[in-house]
Amino acid sequence: MGFWKKLLNNSAAATAPQDNIFEGDMIITKRETAPETRICFSTQRELDLYELEELCDRVGWARRPLRKVRKALQHSFLVVSMWEVRGKSKRLIGFARATSDHAFNATIWDVVVDPEYQSKGLGKALMKYLIKKLRGEDISNITLFADPGVIDFYRRLGFMLDPEGIKGMFWYPD
Amino acid sequence: MGFWKKLLNNSAAATAPQDNIFEGDMIITKRETAPETRICFSTQRELDLYELEELCDRVGWARRPLRKVRKALQHSFLVVSMWEVRGKSKRLIGFARATSDHAFNATIWDVVVDPEYQSKGLGKALMKYLIKKLRGEDISNITLFADPGVIDFYRRLGFMLDPEGIKGMFWYPD
Repeated sequence: MGFWKKLLNNSAAATAPQDNIFEGDMIITKRETAPETRICFSTQRELDLYELEELCDRVGWARRPLRKVRKALQHSFLVVSMWEVRGKSKRLIGFARATSDHAFNATIWDVVVDPEYQSKGLGKALMKYLIKKLRGEDISNITLFADPGVIDFYRRLGFMLDPEGIKGMFWYPD
Repeated sequence: MGFWKKLLNNSAAATAPQDNIFEGDMIITKRETAPETRICFSTQRELDLYELEELCDRVGWARRPLRKVRKALQHSFLVVSMWEVRGKSKRLIGFARATSDHAFNATIWDVVVDPEYQSKGLGKALMKYLIKKLRGEDISNITLFADPGVIDFYRRLGFMLDPEGIKGMFWYPD
């Protein structure tokens, strides 16, 4: 977790202890430098889509129609957002979602961490939170499609590349 | 299509012309040998789970709890079954399903064709039907995880392996 200290990670829907502005789940504080700053996770899918778009802009993703993003969030099995909370203000700093058949398989999409908050163990914390939530729903086969630059990141989290020769394949329209 | 002749493939929910026992979609007849035999596709998700289990048994898949199979079918975005229809009787000979966020991505799971009906172009027809249905829902990113033995099958259908180095990855519980 780097210099982030995990305070709580087992409560199902813990509210931040100091105030009620955030209904989150896992809470991390910056130990030495800014004890008033917390990192929280939420599975609420009603996100401000403009805020999400800004986050995706910051990592250089191509913009997508908000109408389709709204539909995708609505029909994802799990939507996880990561927030920096300081006093009464909060900022969206990470996001990931998963589709699923609610029984066997889940596929993780759109994993993003604000570049300013990268390399601090927060992407790892976000993924661990997501995996824990999926495991809590009895999903045993968690899959994703990784860009070359993040394969090692996912490998360190326990994801396997092409197990038993199984290969990810893509079909795009002409 | 091998020796199967495609009669209809554009109607949204065409009923088999000779009788009403089957509400299917794409209909194929065996041209020379058995004109009374038709192959039909359906997207109805209320399948006889025992019949589906028998089909999966025939290809040697491990059995799965029917309660979970029912849940998976219910929460799949698309469920496609393939049937051989002779007069008043029908037999499940193929199956596939897809999870999706209903907007951008779909992932295909559990593609199976009865071994007796393999190598006749029917797996290809099943997949083409599935892709067409997904494209009709404006899904542009269709993905799957292919066992080594079927990579070429999917490649011939237009699926690409690791495009731009993107890799399929799996996480399983310990």
